[in-house]
Amino acid sequence: MVVDLRSDTVTRPSDAMRDAAKNAEVGDDVYRDDPSVNELERRAAEILGKEAGLFVPSGTMGNQVAIRAHTDRGQELLADEHAHVLKWELGAVAQLSSLQTRLLDFGDSGAPTPEQVEGGIVEEGLHEAGTGLFCLENTHNYRGGVAVPKEEIDAAAEVAHEHDVPVHLDGARLFNAAEALSTDAAALAENVDSVMFCLSKGLGAPVGSMLVGDQAFIDRARRVRKLFGGGMRQAGIIAAPGLLALENREHLADDHRRAARIAEDLGQIDGIETTAPDSNIVVADVADTGLNAEEFVGQIEQHGVLAVAFSETTVRFTTNWDVTDDDIEQAIDSVRTAMAET
Amino acid sequence: MVVDLRSDTVTRPSDAMRDAAKNAEVGDDVYRDDPSVNELERRAAEILGKEAGLFVPSGTMGNQVAIRAHTDRGQELLADEHAHVLKWELGAVAQLSSLQTRLLDFGDSGAPTPEQVEGGIVEEGLHEAGTGLFCLENTHNYRGGVAVPKEEIDAAAEVAHEHDVPVHLDGARLFNAAEALSTDAAALAENVDSVMFCLSKGLGAPVGSMLVGDQAFIDRARRVRKLFGGGMRQAGIIAAPGLLALENREHLADDHRRAARIAEDLGQIDGIETTAPDSNIVVADVADTGLNAEEFVGQIEQHGVLAVAFSETTVRFTTNWDVTDDDIEQAIDSVRTAMAET
Amino acid sequence: MVVDLRSDTVTRPSDAMRDAAKNAEVGDDVYRDDPSVNELERRAAEILGKEAGLFVPSGTMGNQVAIRAHTDRGQELLADEHAHVLKWELGAVAQLSSLQTRLLDFGDSGAPTPEQVEGGIVEEGLHEAGTGLFCLENTHNYRGGVAVPKEEIDAAAEVAHEHDVPVHLDGARLFNAAEALSTDAAALAENVDSVMFCLSKGLGAPVGSMLVGDQAFIDRARRVRKLFGGGMRQAGIIAAPGLLALENREHLADDHRRAARIAEDLGQIDGIETTAPDSNIVVADVADTGLNAEEFVGQIEQHGVLAVAFSETTVRFTTNWDVTDDDIEQAIDSVRTAMAET
Amino acid sequence: MVVDLRSDTVTRPSDAMRDAAKNAEVGDDVYRDDPSVNELERRAAEILGKEAGLFVPSGTMGNQVAIRAHTDRGQELLADEHAHVLKWELGAVAQLSSLQTRLLDFGDSGAPTPEQVEGGIVEEGLHEAGTGLFCLENTHNYRGGVAVPKEEIDAAAEVAHEHDVPVHLDGARLFNAAEALSTDAAALAENVDSVMFCLSKGLGAPVGSMLVGDQAFIDRARRVRKLFGGGMRQAGIIAAPGLLALENREHLADDHRRAARIAEDLGQIDGIETTAPDSNIVVADVADTGLNAEEFVGQIEQHGVLAVAFSETTVRFTTNWDVTDDDIEQAIDSVRTAMAET
Ligand SMILES: [Ca+2]
Ligand SMILES: [Ca+2]
Ligand SMILES: [Ca+2]
Ligand SMILES: [Ca+2]
Ligand SMILES: [Ca+2]
Ligand SMILES: [Ca+2]
Repeated sequence: MVVDLRSDTVTRPSDAMRDAAKNAEVGDDVYRDDPSVNELERRAAEILGKEAGLFVPSGTMGNQVAIRAHTDRGQELLADEHAHVLKWELGAVAQLSSLQTRLLDFGDSGAPTPEQVEGGIVEEGLHEAGTGLFCLENTHNYRGGVAVPKEEIDAAAEVAHEHDVPVHLDGARLFNAAEALSTDAAALAENVDSVMFCLSKGLGAPVGSMLVGDQAFIDRARRVRKLFGGGMRQAGIIAAPGLLALENREHLADDHRRAARIAEDLGQIDGIETTAPDSNIVVADVADTGLNAEEFVGQIEQHGVLAVAFSETTVRFTTNWDVTDDDIEQAIDSVRTAMAET
Repeated sequence: MVVDLRSDTVTRPSDAMRDAAKNAEVGDDVYRDDPSVNELERRAAEILGKEAGLFVPSGTMGNQVAIRAHTDRGQELLADEHAHVLKWELGAVAQLSSLQTRLLDFGDSGAPTPEQVEGGIVEEGLHEAGTGLFCLENTHNYRGGVAVPKEEIDAAAEVAHEHDVPVHLDGARLFNAAEALSTDAAALAENVDSVMFCLSKGLGAPVGSMLVGDQAFIDRARRVRKLFGGGMRQAGIIAAPGLLALENREHLADDHRRAARIAEDLGQIDGIETTAPDSNIVVADVADTGLNAEEFVGQIEQHGVLAVAFSETTVRFTTNWDVTDDDIEQAIDSVRTAMAET
Repeated sequence: MVVDLRSDTVTRPSDAMRDAAKNAEVGDDVYRDDPSVNELERRAAEILGKEAGLFVPSGTMGNQVAIRAHTDRGQELLADEHAHVLKWELGAVAQLSSLQTRLLDFGDSGAPTPEQVEGGIVEEGLHEAGTGLFCLENTHNYRGGVAVPKEEIDAAAEVAHEHDVPVHLDGARLFNAAEALSTDAAALAENVDSVMFCLSKGLGAPVGSMLVGDQAFIDRARRVRKLFGGGMRQAGIIAAPGLLALENREHLADDHRRAARIAEDLGQIDGIETTAPDSNIVVADVADTGLNAEEFVGQIEQHGVLAVAFSETTVRFTTNWDVTDDDIEQAIDSVRTAMAET
Repeated sequence: MVVDLRSDTVTRPSDAMRDAAKNAEVGDDVYRDDPSVNELERRAAEILGKEAGLFVPSGTMGNQVAIRAHTDRGQELLADEHAHVLKWELGAVAQLSSLQTRLLDFGDSGAPTPEQVEGGIVEEGLHEAGTGLFCLENTHNYRGGVAVPKEEIDAAAEVAHEHDVPVHLDGARLFNAAEALSTDAAALAENVDSVMFCLSKGLGAPVGSMLVGDQAFIDRARRVRKLFGGGMRQAGIIAAPGLLALENREHLADDHRRAARIAEDLGQIDGIETTAPDSNIVVADVADTGLNAEEFVGQIEQHGVLAVAFSETTVRFTTNWDVTDDDIEQAIDSVRTAMAET
């Protein structure tokens, strides 16, 4: 039996979600005739406290549609050097939106100081295209699933807004952040202009992500989505399970507890260093095992544990609702055995 | 009761498709772990006689992914002046692939002569970027759903290939063409390098289209799909009904028969001109009704018939498997009444 | 002795122009401190009856800067299928401005009918990016240096303007058109929004072209010029001879007379067909010589005459102020001899 | 009398250069027929120890042509966060080459450590486009005209090359670096794949920059130059003075001495902090004057000294061959007076 801790994207839909897919009211969403999609877009906006929503086939599309809908070609995008939108989306910000990227080092907190934001914003000038968008990420994936508190988001966004720079929040795992911080997702999103969050990760939907913002922004985004080929037809088949996923947030506390358990137990294995995680992502430093990250992942895979090499020396373990307490124990035992054999 | 003849995209999934969605085996398709998607891609390639397939969320994405996967920026795309890829995809060939477009007039046959293709191909030179791709469309939407015979496709493709220019076939309704021509889709696709066809149109799937071609092409296309944000997770939920749609081709003959009926009867109404259609699309010239196309569409909508203004003076009616013989009779009566009131 | 009839771009500067280069007042034009450039821009605008001007290093840059300054990415550019901006500028409209191209067949007159323009303009819609710019060319290079009268330009421009589509005139040889039509360049430019014309062709300057239009357009264009790398420093060294070139229009009548002579005499050679030219460009059809255009050009080069293969079967001869009446006679004799030997 | 220390771009051509312009042998460089351009390209390559050269109208074009000729769309460009190519070229790397930018902090030395380069290079992967180019700058403008020694260039380039990443050197002021380091420009360029250097800055030419590299690279670059509109006709008029500029390097030592004098004397004024410059650029920190950089520049302009606000708190003074020892004394006196009045 394999324990799959590669990502929370691997979550499979619940029976209720499958029933919802089967019974979904549908229509042609390109004509705005799909009631399930319309309801999902309305409800997503409501939960996040925004005017309008848009259903997209992937988190990458949600982020990249938002980035283009906010900017003009040639402007700068200001973001963390380890932001998902820059690191793992195939250079799309340059390819699809013609944006130059200016990077900050958000550090372990997953958020910049207001001074960093101030220093990173470029005014339009004779030789400068100017900053067009500032991006935050919450939870911050590469920084170890760290949850960024509302105060830090608001302070960073305030600086951007003083310069008339809009703020997009890559909230692929925003509900994990809300759970970790014991707050509402809407509170975390209050002072940003747009949010992308994924239905298909911790929330467990089979397919899709949401983009929310004000109506004018969503109108522009809908057109960009069409340009990128993201307009789907009877999308209610996946929007209906997505609606259930939207409310499927109770298990996140368990996912976080399980991640804490992984961090604690793996950290006691010789050569593995971990820190207590905020959410469902554990990034373990395996440098002292004598293996690099790829080798480590290969080694534990032979013992039935799937994880992801995250850098030369770090490995990511992600809990999700398909993973039980027993799975976690089995995984920890298996890593221990695997390391003993190294 | 409204009869919706706007498009065959409005088709709703059958109960069998809904059951397939509910019971689909799924996995994370970004990791290539979704057995339903894998089977759909395998089967689509098999039916079209190609090496490999790729599932995409829309026909626009399928076409635009193919266009980019075949070309280098700055080359020319040679296509019909009324090709869907140029006319209704928001200028994506320039925006996403940086291609200049060179247009031919395919005329009523929906296909160019070999001489036209020869004349349209530009060799790379000191001042010329050169032709990078030649596109065909079958059935040809704007040309009235005309089915292009294998001989014409092959003759046009041969000229392109002589100049080392690859050929992409926008086969959104390729199975309608095959039905109209009493041939195999694979035969129509034999001499082109890639084909996009839609599951969500006449075949009745809720969401998605397929791209097929040789393995190296599909490998490049998979990467472009990711760039465009088209990588989905447990996509088996929509791939499973797509697999049924792939085999759901018997009703196409009925759709065509019903379109012929519409053309014949509407053509007898004063001011409306039609020609006998090849497939499920009827383009009616309403210039002599005293209404422009927009007005005509508005007028018949008030009598419960939905159609699409196609140009200043033409209106498109599209049959699909949700539309019965009775619906057709009702629609024709309603148009007649609407015109009597004009 | 070689007679070079490849292009009027080969014109060498006069002694007066060389003196002007030597004695030019200069400054740093990126800071707008070059008095010679400033005067050239002022004077070019004045002659064309526009508010402002911009000096650019080439005609291609002038056209492409104008195209980008007029449009948004993804719009359509409407132009002749044989427009220079599409045919010989390396696909720049897609590469630098992300524009899709929609083509008309301007025919032998070098200008479209108002109906053609009307038919080619696409309104922005749910699926359509819309037409962003309409381009004319005068004289029309590929169409044989044909001079397009003011009435035809104005009629075409009026249709575009009714749709709020701006009009750019590629007037690389606009002063040749004015000479041929016995009118002012300003009259030809009256109803278009921007004009590019070349100093370095028939006017004889060593380097550079001008872009003129209203002040807001030129301000945008200046920024695009910088983006494309066209901002030069002490450009007065080439602007000063450019100022002389601006007034160097008297010889154009002679160039045209010489072109007429070439057309007449070459047309009497077996296998060569010509028509009487409007300006300084003669396009000869050599299909019946038994040589293709490349072979023909090679053959006459061996007899000391340089020309350009223009298509499979046509060859272009261009007169310019470096070419005397004696040169013309010699060239005609040489072609006659070359053909006799074929 | 104004002393212009804004930039060395303001240098005006010498009488010898003006004579060279007047007497230049010219031809049509688009046809490669301009002997002066051909000689300039040959000689520039020779001096830098590379196979071939290309004349371009500006440093921005030289850099951006190189960047595009080295890369594929969507790759990453690795460079200093204060690199000229990113900071002052209007976002061209994203707009013209569709590159994502990854930034390093080169620090005061103007060069990264090999470890920084190693850490910044991204391998192509499923989600990563990969690094396509690494850029260095010498002297480094924003870092205060610092001259980067050969050892540091070579060490950084070696790391890039180990990953098959080419290296471009923005050597706008490479001869200043060579002078400062008492070495050859060719030595500094030995281990990079391409170099752009400006004729129009310290070397004193009126217009133009050079790009050098191996023949295959220059062939690609020539095509990109044409795409960007940088192909000029009788460019010999500016290439001939450029040839003199190439050899006009003796005065650079004086420029550097004068910059040292400025730094020393301004640094003794209350509120102004300077460090000893490597070359002809002095960056003064004026934070303690109670003025911001814009205000400081405005204040000294009223006393006849032109400089450039470089950041919120820093001001750049640049010496050049039009500025004499007397000018320097006058400028220092004027700044002193201006500050006394603040
Ligand atoms: Ca999932
Ligand atoms: Ca440990
Ligand atoms: Ca459907
Ligand atoms: Ca010339
Ligand atoms: Ca200069
Ligand atoms: Ca001091």
